[in-house]
Amino acid sequence: MMNDDRLFPAEPTTRAIARRLFQDVRKLPIISPHGHTDPRWFAENQPFPNPAQLFVTPDHYVFRMLYSQGVALEDLGVPRVDGGPVEVDPRRIWRLFAEHYRLFAGTPTRLWLDHSFENLFGLTERLSPANADRYYDVIAEALQRPEFRPRALFEKFNIEVIATTESALDDLRWHKAIRESGWQGRVVTNYRPDSVVDPAFPGFRDNVAKFGAIAGEDTATWSGYLAAHHKRRDFFKAHGATATDHGHPSAATANLAPADARALFARVIAGTPSEADSELFRAQMLTEMAAMSLDDGLVMQIHPGSWRNHNPLLYARFGRDKGADIPIQTDYVHALKPLLDRFGNEKSLTVILFTLDETAYSRELAPLAGHYPALRLGPPWWFFDSVNGMRRFRELTTETAGFANTVGFNDDTRAFPSIPGRHDVARRVDCAFLAELVATHQLDEDEAHEWARALAYSLAKSAYRF
Amino acid sequence: MMNDDRLFPAEPTTRAIARRLFQDVRKLPIISPHGHTDPRWFAENQPFPNPAQLFVTPDHYVFRMLYSQGVALEDLGVPRVDGGPVEVDPRRIWRLFAEHYRLFAGTPTRLWLDHSFENLFGLTERLSPANADRYYDVIAEALQRPEFRPRALFEKFNIEVIATTESALDDLRWHKAIRESGWQGRVVTNYRPDSVVDPAFPGFRDNVAKFGAIAGEDTATWSGYLAAHHKRRDFFKAHGATATDHGHPSAATANLAPADARALFARVIAGTPSEADSELFRAQMLTEMAAMSLDDGLVMQIHPGSWRNHNPLLYARFGRDKGADIPIQTDYVHALKPLLDRFGNEKSLTVILFTLDETAYSRELAPLAGHYPALRLGPPWWFFDSVNGMRRFRELTTETAGFANTVGFNDDTRAFPSIPGRHDVARRVDCAFLAELVATHQLDEDEAHEWARALAYSLAKSAYRF
Amino acid sequence: MMNDDRLFPAEPTTRAIARRLFQDVRKLPIISPHGHTDPRWFAENQPFPNPAQLFVTPDHYVFRMLYSQGVALEDLGVPRVDGGPVEVDPRRIWRLFAEHYRLFAGTPTRLWLDHSFENLFGLTERLSPANADRYYDVIAEALQRPEFRPRALFEKFNIEVIATTESALDDLRWHKAIRESGWQGRVVTNYRPDSVVDPAFPGFRDNVAKFGAIAGEDTATWSGYLAAHHKRRDFFKAHGATATDHGHPSAATANLAPADARALFARVIAGTPSEADSELFRAQMLTEMAAMSLDDGLVMQIHPGSWRNHNPLLYARFGRDKGADIPIQTDYVHALKPLLDRFGNEKSLTVILFTLDETAYSRELAPLAGHYPALRLGPPWWFFDSVNGMRRFRELTTETAGFANTVGFNDDTRAFPSIPGRHDVARRVDCAFLAELVATHQLDEDEAHEWARALAYSLAKSAYRF
Repeated sequence: MMNDDRLFPAEPTTRAIARRLFQDVRKLPIISPHGHTDPRWFAENQPFPNPAQLFVTPDHYVFRMLYSQGVALEDLGVPRVDGGPVEVDPRRIWRLFAEHYRLFAGTPTRLWLDHSFENLFGLTERLSPANADRYYDVIAEALQRPEFRPRALFEKFNIEVIATTESALDDLRWHKAIRESGWQGRVVTNYRPDSVVDPAFPGFRDNVAKFGAIAGEDTATWSGYLAAHHKRRDFFKAHGATATDHGHPSAATANLAPADARALFARVIAGTPSEADSELFRAQMLTEMAAMSLDDGLVMQIHPGSWRNHNPLLYARFGRDKGADIPIQTDYVHALKPLLDRFGNEKSLTVILFTLDETAYSRELAPLAGHYPALRLGPPWWFFDSVNGMRRFRELTTETAGFANTVGFNDDTRAFPSIPGRHDVARRVDCAFLAELVATHQLDEDEAHEWARALAYSLAKSAYRF
Repeated sequence: MMNDDRLFPAEPTTRAIARRLFQDVRKLPIISPHGHTDPRWFAENQPFPNPAQLFVTPDHYVFRMLYSQGVALEDLGVPRVDGGPVEVDPRRIWRLFAEHYRLFAGTPTRLWLDHSFENLFGLTERLSPANADRYYDVIAEALQRPEFRPRALFEKFNIEVIATTESALDDLRWHKAIRESGWQGRVVTNYRPDSVVDPAFPGFRDNVAKFGAIAGEDTATWSGYLAAHHKRRDFFKAHGATATDHGHPSAATANLAPADARALFARVIAGTPSEADSELFRAQMLTEMAAMSLDDGLVMQIHPGSWRNHNPLLYARFGRDKGADIPIQTDYVHALKPLLDRFGNEKSLTVILFTLDETAYSRELAPLAGHYPALRLGPPWWFFDSVNGMRRFRELTTETAGFANTVGFNDDTRAFPSIPGRHDVARRVDCAFLAELVATHQLDEDEAHEWARALAYSLAKSAYRF
Repeated sequence: MMNDDRLFPAEPTTRAIARRLFQDVRKLPIISPHGHTDPRWFAENQPFPNPAQLFVTPDHYVFRMLYSQGVALEDLGVPRVDGGPVEVDPRRIWRLFAEHYRLFAGTPTRLWLDHSFENLFGLTERLSPANADRYYDVIAEALQRPEFRPRALFEKFNIEVIATTESALDDLRWHKAIRESGWQGRVVTNYRPDSVVDPAFPGFRDNVAKFGAIAGEDTATWSGYLAAHHKRRDFFKAHGATATDHGHPSAATANLAPADARALFARVIAGTPSEADSELFRAQMLTEMAAMSLDDGLVMQIHPGSWRNHNPLLYARFGRDKGADIPIQTDYVHALKPLLDRFGNEKSLTVILFTLDETAYSRELAPLAGHYPALRLGPPWWFFDSVNGMRRFRELTTETAGFANTVGFNDDTRAFPSIPGRHDVARRVDCAFLAELVATHQLDEDEAHEWARALAYSLAKSAYRF
C-alpha cells in the first residue's frame, strides 16, 4: 500500500530531489515533544488489548468520521457516561470500521492507518469488508507477541524522547514507575495546568483546593496559589518536563498590577465567576506562567482556539473528547500583546504558538514570530498530520518567519502506533516543500539538506530543550 | 478553443491519470440540484431571443466585469427601474461585449463562454472585435432552429434533473405547465421562503399577508404562519421540490422557547422591527425550517454571507442582482449551534452549508461536517465555477470531512447554455485533484474512479434525494 | 547563485512557456509607483557609505529576522533614541549579518539580496561567515565607483519612473533639487498626509498648525484645513505626484454631513480626541481625499491593517519602523461602503486598495474590484516581494476581478539596490502563473504575452497615470 515515493511531487526532477532529501532524514530518531500517549503503557508494558481498542474506540479523530456518516458511537464500543450498553465485541467493532474505511479516502487518518497496517503488521492489501477478519486476526495475534508491547514498539519506532501531557494535579506515578523500572526509554511529562487555571473548567474550585493540598500551599490565597504552581512545576521538571502546555479558548493574555491580580483571583476562587473574569484570569495566568518560565526554563506552549465539546447531546452521553472540538477564529495580535509587552524581547524565554486557525499564519503568526525573540511557531495543531495543512503552513509562514522560528513537528496523538506514520508524513511533506524550493532555484540543495534535518529533528530538540 | 486536456495538471503522469478518471465521468448525466434557470423556458419552449439576451444582458456575473472597467449598464441593455432609455439593439450590445471579451482572461466566465461557443455553436476562434459580427450571426441563426429550443438543449445537455428556485409566494404555474405538457424532462422547484422569513426583505409584511392568503392560513398569528409554511412546503413537494433554500445575511440560528418565538413573531409582523429582531427572527426560522425538514424530508440549504445590493446608486437605477452582492466574513461555529444543539445528531436530516467565505473551510465547515450527522458541505457557492476555488475547496475540506460529507457540484446559474461547461469544469477539477492524490500515492486509482463518479453524479443525487 | 529558470515551475512544458513569456518582459523598464527610497540620494548623488548601511542597518525587513533569533539591534548599528552606544564598525555589522545569513533560506529577502550581490557586485558564491570579508571588500570598493552612485544605478536599473513618499509637511526640497539639477531621471513624490489626518499620530495638533502655516491657510477651521489639503496636493502635483497614500489602522470610511464633519474636526483639533473620534476623523478624511481626487486627478492608495510599533520596549529604545508592524484582520466591505456609496461608480476616480490580510482577497477585495468602477487592487503589500504571496494573490483574485482590475507590481521598498531583484521576482511569478494557465489550456499563449506585459509594465503605468 505504501509506495516509497508517496507524498513527493509527481514532477520527476523535483521528486528526485525530494527523494535525496528524505534519504537523509528518514531514519533520524523521533523527537515527540507534545502528545497524549499514556505513560502507564510504558510503565506496565502490558500488551495492547485488541485491534479495535488499538485503532478505533479510543481515537476520536477516527470515529468522528464514522459518526458524521451515521454510525452510532455505541456500535463502536465508545463507553457511555451512564454506563449503558455499548458494543463489547472487538471483532464486530472492527468489521464496522472496515465497512466504513472507504470514508477515509484522501484523509491523513488513512495515511497513518495504512502505514501502521503495513509497517507494523505486514498487511499490504487495503482494508475492506472482505478482508476485515483477516486483518483482525493478524493484528490480534501480533499484539500478543513481546515485540508489540509498548516498550518494544517505542524502541522499534526509534523514539529518542516522547512527552506525554499530565494535569497539574497528576501524581506522575507512571513516570516515576518508568524511571524506577530501569528501562532506558525517555518518556517525559508536560505541565498542563488548565484544570486549576481555567475557572470554567469543571470542578475548578475543588481542583484548586486539591492543588494546594498536593503542593502543601494555601491556594485560597493568590500568593499560595502561585507558590503551588512553582512547586508543581518543579515536581514536573523532576519528572523530565521541559515544557508547559496551555489549552485556552482564546490566546488572550493580561498583565494586571499585582493588587488587581490578587483581587481577580479572590473573585474567581470565591464562587461562580463571570465569563469576563474567567477569561481575564486565564489571560493573566498565561503571563504568570511566562514569568515562571523565565525563572525555571520550562518552554511554554499555547494552543488556543478550540470550542471544546460543541455537541451537548454527545457530551452528555459520552463525555469529553468525542470528535466535537471545533476550531474558532483566533486573534493573536491583540491577544498576546500584554504578555509580549512584558516578555516578548526575552531571549531566554520560548513561547510556542499553536493554531487551529490557518488564516492567522501569514497575517499574524509569521510576522509575530519573525520579530519577537521569545516567540516560535508550533506545528499546525490538529492539521499537523495533514499533508495539505503542513504544506500550507510552510507556504504561509516560511517567507516571513523563516525556518528557524518554527519548531519542527509534533504528533500530538494518543494513537501510539500512528507515531512513525505521522512523522513519516511530516518529513515527506517538508522534503517535498524544500525540493520545490530547490527545483525552482530558490534554495541550494546543500541548504535544503541542512533544513530538512532541522525540521525533522534538531529544531524540535533545541526548541523544547531536550 | 477547447483543448481536451484543459484543466488537467501539466505533469504528464498526473495528466494521464486525470484523463482516465475523466473518461469515466465525462458523459454521466447532469444533476443540477440548485440553480436559477427559468421554468418558463421549459414550459413554453420558445426560442431564446438573441445572442445578447442569451449571454450578456441578464447575467450579472458577466456584465459586472464590463461595469467594473467603465462600461455603462445602459449600453448593455440592462433595463432601468424608471424605464429610461437603454440600448435595444442586440448586435450593438454584442459588439460592446466582444470588445471587452479580453477582460475575462483567467476567469471561469471565459471557460464556460468558450465552452458554449464551441460546443453549442461550433465557433472555434476566440471572440474578438474582429469576429463579433460573425459570432452574432452564427448564434442568432442557430437560436431559431428547433434544436436550440430549451427542451432540446435540456436533452442535448443530458440533464437528468434540474432544480429551479421559486419564492414561497410563487404559484409554480410553469412547473405545473411542464408536468401537464407531457414532456419528460425533470424540472423541479426549490422552496425559497426568504421573502416571508426575512423581516428586512422589501415588502415583508405584505408578503406574509399574501402568503397567508395563498395558503389559506391566518398568518397574522405565529401558529397560522407556521401552518402556512407547512402547506406551502407540501405544495412545493408536489411540484417536485426535494429541498429548501435559505439565503440569509448570516448563518445565525436560534432556538427560542415557543412563547418567545410567538412574541418575536408578533413584534416583527407588527411594524418596523429592529435589526436585532430581524436577525433573531431569521435565526429562529432556520431552526423552524429544520424541524419541518425532519417531518417532510426536504433537504435544507443554507447559504449565508452575502451583502446584497452593496451599491445603492446602482440598486436605485437598475434593481436587484446587478453584480453588487459582496461576500462578508461568516461565522458558522457560534451561529449554527442553536440549530445543531437541537437537530445536529439527526441522521435523517440533511442540512447543506454553502459559503462565500473560504476562510471557514478548514477552520469551521470541514470540522463541523466531519462530525455532525446532519451536516453536509455544499459547493463553494459563487466560486463553484471557479477552477482555483474548487481546488481550494477540496484541498481545505477533504482531509477533515472526507468526500462523503460533501454533495458534489451545483451550477447555481441562470445562464442555461453554461450548464454543461460548468459541470465540465467541476468534473475536470475533481479529476485533477484525485489524480494528484493518485500520483502522489495517497489514493489508489480504483478508489479515485469511485470517488470521481461520486463527485460528478451520485453524491448530488443522494444528498438531494433525487 | 541566480539560475535563469528560478521561480519557474519545474514541469518542463510549463517552464518553457514561462521562459518565453519572461523573455518578453524581462527588459521592460521599471515603473515603481509606490516606495520609500530617499529623494536626497538622487538630488545629491553621493556614494552609498558602506555595505552595512546599504543592506542591513536601515532595512527593518532585513534586521527583524536577526532580531527574532536573538541578535541585538545595537550590534547591527541601529541608532538608539537616547543616542546610546551602538556598533559603528560597518565591517563588524556585516560579519554579524553574514553569520546569520542562513536564516533567510526560503525567504524573499534572500532572493533579492542574492540578486543584488550577483547582478550588481558580481558575487556568485553564497554569503557565509567564510566569505563575509571578501563580500565586504568587493561591495565597499564598488560603492566608491561612479557607476554605483544613485543616479547611475537608477539608469542601470532601467527605471522609467519612481515615486517616493513624502509627508504632507515636507518641503520637497530634494525633488526640487532633482528637477533643477537637469538630470533626466523621473523621480516623483506621493502625497502622504497621515501626520495631519490621523489624530492619533504623534504631534497631530502641532502638525496641523504647521500644515496651515506652510499652506497659508487657517487650519484651526475645517474649511481652512480642507483648503490647506487642496493647496498641498497641488504643490505635490507640481513636484510630479500622481497619487496620494493613506496608511490607516483600518479601512474605515465615513460620509458625514458637512456640519457633522466640521464639528468632528473641532473636537479632534481641540484636545485629546477619543479613539472613536480619531477613527471617525480618519474615516471621514478618506472620503474627503476621494472628493479631492475627483477634482485634481490624484490616484488614491489606501493601505490599512497594520498595527504599527507593536513592541513598546523596542519603540522606546529605537523608534518607528523597526520590524514590529504586525498585520491585523481587516474588513473592507463594511468599511469602504460610505466612500463607495458616494464615489464608487465614478469612472474617473481610481482608488487602489492594498492589504496585509490575505483572507480578504477572494472574499472581499476581488468581488469589490470586480464590480466598482472606481476600485483597483494594489499588490499584496508587505508580501509583494513574496513568491508565494504573489502567487496566492493571483490565484485568489484573478477569477473574480480579472487582471485589468489590478495595477501591476509595487516594490514599496527603501532598499534601493533591491528594486531590480524585486521586479524580477514579480515578473517571474506572474509569468509562471500565466504559464500554468496556458499549460492547462485556460488561456492562449498570445493572450498570456499580452497580460505578462500588462502586469510587468503597462497596468502600473496607466493605473498611476504616469
